[in-house]
Amino acid sequence: MKTQQFVVIGLGRFGSSLALELMDLGYEVLGVDRNEEVVEEWSDRLTHAVVADATDEEVLKSLGVRNFDCGIVAIGDDIQMSILSTILLKDLGIKTVVAKAISVLHGRALEKLGVDRVIFPERDMGVRVAHQLVTPNLLDYIELSKEYSIVELRVPDCLNGKNVGDLNPRARFGCSIVAIHRESGVIIAPTAMDHLTQGDIMVLIGAKKNIEEFEAIINE
Amino acid sequence: MKTQQFVVIGLGRFGSSLALELMDLGYEVLGVDRNEEVVEEWSDRLTHAVVADATDEEVLKSLGVRNFDCGIVAIGDDIQMSILSTILLKDLGIKTVVAKAISVLHGRALEKLGVDRVIFPERDMGVRVAHQLVTPNLLDYIELSKEYSIVELRVPDCLNGKNVGDLNPRARFGCSIVAIHRESGVIIAPTAMDHLTQGDIMVLIGAKKNIEEFEAIINE
Amino acid sequence: MKTQQFVVIGLGRFGSSLALELMDLGYEVLGVDRNEEVVEEWSDRLTHAVVADATDEEVLKSLGVRNFDCGIVAIGDDIQMSILSTILLKDLGIKTVVAKAISVLHGRALEKLGVDRVIFPERDMGVRVAHQLVTPNLLDYIELSKEYSIVELRVPDCLNGKNVGDLNPRARFGCSIVAIHRESGVIIAPTAMDHLTQGDIMVLIGAKKNIEEFEAIINE
Amino acid sequence: MKTQQFVVIGLGRFGSSLALELMDLGYEVLGVDRNEEVVEEWSDRLTHAVVADATDEEVLKSLGVRNFDCGIVAIGDDIQMSILSTILLKDLGIKTVVAKAISVLHGRALEKLGVDRVIFPERDMGVRVAHQLVTPNLLDYIELSKEYSIVELRVPDCLNGKNVGDLNPRARFGCSIVAIHRESGVIIAPTAMDHLTQGDIMVLIGAKKNIEEFEAIINE
Amino acid sequence: MKTQQFVVIGLGRFGSSLALELMDLGYEVLGVDRNEEVVEEWSDRLTHAVVADATDEEVLKSLGVRNFDCGIVAIGDDIQMSILSTILLKDLGIKTVVAKAISVLHGRALEKLGVDRVIFPERDMGVRVAHQLVTPNLLDYIELSKEYSIVELRVPDCLNGKNVGDLNPRARFGCSIVAIHRESGVIIAPTAMDHLTQGDIMVLIGAKKNIEEFEAIINE
Amino acid sequence: MKTQQFVVIGLGRFGSSLALELMDLGYEVLGVDRNEEVVEEWSDRLTHAVVADATDEEVLKSLGVRNFDCGIVAIGDDIQMSILSTILLKDLGIKTVVAKAISVLHGRALEKLGVDRVIFPERDMGVRVAHQLVTPNLLDYIELSKEYSIVELRVPDCLNGKNVGDLNPRARFGCSIVAIHRESGVIIAPTAMDHLTQGDIMVLIGAKKNIEEFEAIINE
Amino acid sequence: MKTQQFVVIGLGRFGSSLALELMDLGYEVLGVDRNEEVVEEWSDRLTHAVVADATDEEVLKSLGVRNFDCGIVAIGDDIQMSILSTILLKDLGIKTVVAKAISVLHGRALEKLGVDRVIFPERDMGVRVAHQLVTPNLLDYIELSKEYSIVELRVPDCLNGKNVGDLNPRARFGCSIVAIHRESGVIIAPTAMDHLTQGDIMVLIGAKKNIEEFEAIINE
Amino acid sequence: MKTQQFVVIGLGRFGSSLALELMDLGYEVLGVDRNEEVVEEWSDRLTHAVVADATDEEVLKSLGVRNFDCGIVAIGDDIQMSILSTILLKDLGIKTVVAKAISVLHGRALEKLGVDRVIFPERDMGVRVAHQLVTPNLLDYIELSKEYSIVELRVPDCLNGKNVGDLNPRARFGCSIVAIHRESGVIIAPTAMDHLTQGDIMVLIGAKKNIEEFEAIINE
Repeated sequence: MKTQQFVVIGLGRFGSSLALELMDLGYEVLGVDRNEEVVEEWSDRLTHAVVADATDEEVLKSLGVRNFDCGIVAIGDDIQMSILSTILLKDLGIKTVVAKAISVLHGRALEKLGVDRVIFPERDMGVRVAHQLVTPNLLDYIELSKEYSIVELRVPDCLNGKNVGDLNPRARFGCSIVAIHRESGVIIAPTAMDHLTQGDIMVLIGAKKNIEEFEAIINE
Repeated sequence: MKTQQFVVIGLGRFGSSLALELMDLGYEVLGVDRNEEVVEEWSDRLTHAVVADATDEEVLKSLGVRNFDCGIVAIGDDIQMSILSTILLKDLGIKTVVAKAISVLHGRALEKLGVDRVIFPERDMGVRVAHQLVTPNLLDYIELSKEYSIVELRVPDCLNGKNVGDLNPRARFGCSIVAIHRESGVIIAPTAMDHLTQGDIMVLIGAKKNIEEFEAIINE
Repeated sequence: MKTQQFVVIGLGRFGSSLALELMDLGYEVLGVDRNEEVVEEWSDRLTHAVVADATDEEVLKSLGVRNFDCGIVAIGDDIQMSILSTILLKDLGIKTVVAKAISVLHGRALEKLGVDRVIFPERDMGVRVAHQLVTPNLLDYIELSKEYSIVELRVPDCLNGKNVGDLNPRARFGCSIVAIHRESGVIIAPTAMDHLTQGDIMVLIGAKKNIEEFEAIINE
Repeated sequence: MKTQQFVVIGLGRFGSSLALELMDLGYEVLGVDRNEEVVEEWSDRLTHAVVADATDEEVLKSLGVRNFDCGIVAIGDDIQMSILSTILLKDLGIKTVVAKAISVLHGRALEKLGVDRVIFPERDMGVRVAHQLVTPNLLDYIELSKEYSIVELRVPDCLNGKNVGDLNPRARFGCSIVAIHRESGVIIAPTAMDHLTQGDIMVLIGAKKNIEEFEAIINE
Repeated sequence: MKTQQFVVIGLGRFGSSLALELMDLGYEVLGVDRNEEVVEEWSDRLTHAVVADATDEEVLKSLGVRNFDCGIVAIGDDIQMSILSTILLKDLGIKTVVAKAISVLHGRALEKLGVDRVIFPERDMGVRVAHQLVTPNLLDYIELSKEYSIVELRVPDCLNGKNVGDLNPRARFGCSIVAIHRESGVIIAPTAMDHLTQGDIMVLIGAKKNIEEFEAIINE
Repeated sequence: MKTQQFVVIGLGRFGSSLALELMDLGYEVLGVDRNEEVVEEWSDRLTHAVVADATDEEVLKSLGVRNFDCGIVAIGDDIQMSILSTILLKDLGIKTVVAKAISVLHGRALEKLGVDRVIFPERDMGVRVAHQLVTPNLLDYIELSKEYSIVELRVPDCLNGKNVGDLNPRARFGCSIVAIHRESGVIIAPTAMDHLTQGDIMVLIGAKKNIEEFEAIINE
Repeated sequence: MKTQQFVVIGLGRFGSSLALELMDLGYEVLGVDRNEEVVEEWSDRLTHAVVADATDEEVLKSLGVRNFDCGIVAIGDDIQMSILSTILLKDLGIKTVVAKAISVLHGRALEKLGVDRVIFPERDMGVRVAHQLVTPNLLDYIELSKEYSIVELRVPDCLNGKNVGDLNPRARFGCSIVAIHRESGVIIAPTAMDHLTQGDIMVLIGAKKNIEEFEAIINE
Repeated sequence: MKTQQFVVIGLGRFGSSLALELMDLGYEVLGVDRNEEVVEEWSDRLTHAVVADATDEEVLKSLGVRNFDCGIVAIGDDIQMSILSTILLKDLGIKTVVAKAISVLHGRALEKLGVDRVIFPERDMGVRVAHQLVTPNLLDYIELSKEYSIVELRVPDCLNGKNVGDLNPRARFGCSIVAIHRESGVIIAPTAMDHLTQGDIMVLIGAKKNIEEFEAIINE
């Protein structure tokens, strides 16, 4: 099977980070930016990187952009360029086009133009960080629904040495420990006999309000 | 217990999103920005919002910033302002100071100045989006360690109607389904009898390479 | 029947000319421009003229834009503003939205966003003027198809005093005189007996190549 | 007979469109612009295109501008450059000089300098578009006088299948159908027996108020 | 007889100096400049001074500019403004319009627009200063023709005490002393008996080459 | 005798005009300007012209500026550059340094720095033009003292055919005709028998108020 | 005796520091700056502080600047303003005028204009810091002549407990300890019996090369 | 012993002066500046001078900056660059890092980042100059403590010919003359027999208030 190919338009902070991660994950990435210095900075770490105006149809054609599997329009603050590049990627026939938006209205424009996914990196990251700030032990989380989530919590002092059975979060709070992660490895679906140690990270699943109750108590 | 109070310096895309989420989560937020229009835009939706120069110590004092529980320096692109505001927040004695960095070197400066947590929103979001792009059914994920992760996957067509026992990912791929989430609710720790339906979302935990193998097969 | 109402976004050369002509034709026109001086210049001659940012949804709503019959986005050179205003007009439910484009790609964006008619004023005027330059007596024309057109020509010296029957363009060149226009009035469908006088304007219909042949001969 | 030669000063939207149409019509065109990128963009499609300052007399002489039949000053927004170039074209002895004006006062300056024809592309196009907007079926028109015009109208649903005799616009409204244009060809001076079909385009001549009355009725 | 009235458009170095001298000579002067600070600086010393845009016909009309005897367009470096103001002054019917030019081409434009006199202050002053530099004793001069001039010369040391008869420039050099000017008064048409004293100023008339010969000898 | 050598710093309108006139008068001129285009424009018409920063002592030394007889600082609007160049020219030991001032304070600075002559070209030209405007027949003049002047006047219609004796300005107005200049030559010290013809130019000397009286009468 | 009065033109880093120190020393200071914010910042800490253009003679007169004992032109980077203000202060008759220079040529201009003292703060501070960097224990120094200096040195570890007699720098290195400064006070002209303690500061006088030799040995 | 090596970041007025003095003192200096012209200006007078961005870690590494003994961040007005360069110098392991600050807050940032010494050149020089202005004979001084100082004073007229014994400052004012410096040499620890001559410079040590008293009396 042929390796998937991505073209990333705009190699700013978001675009370059995305492009590098795709490289790390083993994919081929063409980076495109108007700015020569920016392209130079990343050219060693991407499959290809070119200085080009992504609103010039001929340029995109000559780069063979139509043969890529996915195009990501990661242009920083220039809504006009973002929209025009998006149109060209769509018209060139790229199957999946993903674009970064910097405002709600920009996002609406991108959707109307048929973008497969609109991303608001700073807005989404603001939301994530807010959650982490208000839950001191929270490391990461997945919001499953309005009501349920999975959270990754540092085990606090007060739970040091307790075993899962004693803690019994399912019975007491209605949420379950699905994994314990410590330096020596990950225990999936821990049993009542497994011990928690300070510094361990535990993964809980449950209703948000139950998890919050649990957190409040262990942080008292 | 007194509600926690946050001061957010810089109400750009990241800062305003973070501030609004904190409001939604029930906390008090003081927003500070140099730009009058920006402050006006958000003032209705935050506890307080003021036009102020966050590099002026007297100004911060007069705002009573020292009494806040946590300060977030969410200044956009001005490294100098970010650094000087951070110093002032630290010196005013705010317990927790979190700051957004726009480059590795900026991040190093913030760490040396004693910031509790440095955030790279665009870089981190770039990484997250990269993962989602290469795994079409991936909705969200938590990286537990270099080797283990929890992933939230849309159930594809080919698994429609299968039960967990048939699929038996633990035996076949070494990863477990910890939850199934569908419109009617969330099934935590599903049994072998639970059925998957197209449109359901399943949460798996396991070694990354095992999860990838699982995904590759169900997407064939 | 209620008078039709138009909202014109952008009161530059094109927008203001269009708005004034609509006023002359007896319609109601709301002019919108970001620039205070521009609005002041035209406010006396339009039904209403307001200084407003046409990319701010709340502003457009408060102006009651949704109740207008037709919106014309006549924004000069700012593609971003043009696109965002267009989206808002469409989303507010205005039945007909017409927009000026400044480049082919801009035009494509507007079409994808569902604009009812895209106008390229300078490009179209360039074409019209080109035709007039190469045909010295040509005053105006309608292009019916690739092959046929109607042209309005000044009667040259050499035809002074000739009657339509003598000239007989239908027989000799395959094109017909549909009207003769002189100070005293317009003769529609002139007969063979009607005389041409220098200074008269005649309207011909026919195949372009026939009309050109006719012109070449009368200009010899 | 030698092909006519045109020099177009300024290759913006209006100038380039005009130049290309002249090329299409079979004439020779020299394009002149200060901006290297602009010249490069059009150089393949014009007889010649040069980067030059059209306010430098020596430069214009060395380009042999005096030998051209017609000069068009299509400079965008720079009134000073427009005026100085116009003076040079006139002084070099070009027979016909046409210039684009961007304001009434600019137009007056050009007239005083002896320009043969002053063009206001955006203003004129604004007028044309206004007419088309208020008459939904209007495609194009020629204004013969304050009172008379020729209009090109799409045949609406309600006239589908009617023949010219039934409709009898001359008797009922005082305006005549001079041609019907459909995909299969153009019928000049249609008879009472000719049928109208939806999608046809009919060309009417008559007093404006009569044509308006006709339109109002067929659009009811 | 009514005092003559002048309107000076542009109160830069040239315009303000001209306006003040006209005031000193006993005339009425209206000064017009776009720049508020400039107008304030001179308003005390002119009959009237107003902040106004001299390319706005309505403004000029409301200032009653049409009633002035002479208009001077002394606009600094903005050729466009200079040309448009000039047209308006001419069209308003001012009898005499004088304008400052900053380049040869600008001067040609002004002449074509019917300006009564075009002035090149810096160029003309360059010429005057050049003459004074090369003739150390030259104070001022009038060039009568290509060949003849009148010069005002400081009497050098070597002529101290000589009388006009001894010097006899008419006989020896072909140029005449028409006046001697000293602190005590002016001697017009001095006789052979009049003495020259160092510090006196003598006025000579004659062929340039003769005057130069005379100067060369007295400066030896 | 060696030809005198001049260095002109600043080749704007004043500087270039002065430099060219010095060339015409037969002297050697080195032109210096920071602006490459400006230097290129004049380099063919001056002995030498170089692109150089006239505030860099080493540069001026390497140009051998110390060997020039006279330095003219004709820098346009940059007072700082004007002052620093002036200091360098003085310190390099040039015998005569002349400098253009753009304000009274600038002039005072130049005088304090030991400049031999400060020139205010636009101010002085403003004064000259004012005199010419108020005396329609005045062509040029030399102001001998507060009270006396020499003027060059066009002979008006009303004096056509009169001879100097009839006119007798000395007796009637107290001013003398020192020369009559016509196409055929110059009559110095005309006699009572010499006739005036319309189109002649006469040179008068006398008290200003007498000359004005004379002018007023001949212009009645 | 009347308190001395100082006027400081320019309240940048150098000017404001100088002005504040003069206030601390008990003098009256008028601060002048063009920038309103700057004036506001310092107005509480100076006798007077005004927003004014120090190149406007009338303004300086109205401030009564002529009555000040000393004027300091501390203008940051604008050589033109510095020079023009200096001329005005001198002409207003202030006895002592001190000015900051930013380049050698600027300094020469100020000297020629009769400034009493020209200061190069950054240059001089560069020199001082260089000396301190190369002598780790050097705190401050006075350069008496090319050969002699007085230095203030931290007493290093190795001299801890030694008395002046043991160290005997005069005999061994030809330089004398003129004072020892410690928390408890200053010992002037210490005797051979006085002890040095780590943390003391000693002041030496002597030939530079001798002091260097001494330093080199005590730092070994 | 190897010569000490310094790297100076920023070659403005302060940095270049410091770098040159270090060269004069016999050390090796690498100068770094972003600005090519600046580097060119100083390259001949420093061991090395390079154009480089001192916030680019790779660049600093490739320059071998880690091997230098001392780094001086002398960047002018760009706080961001100053801070980022400082971090890099510290992280590269340079033993001593000294940095210039332009504001108190900037200074605090530098201290928190571990800079060994923060310098405020303009502020410190302002203080020094203030002292010199209020004591007319003061040439230089060292402030030993809040109370004591060493001052270098010009000997005034009134002390001409007096000997140290007569003056006896220690007995009368409580301050001692530690040296007399005249053209012929320096007298250290002068005896009562040594005479003072006008033009001599005397160095006094003592309590500030005593020295001031002494100065006040000798200046009466």
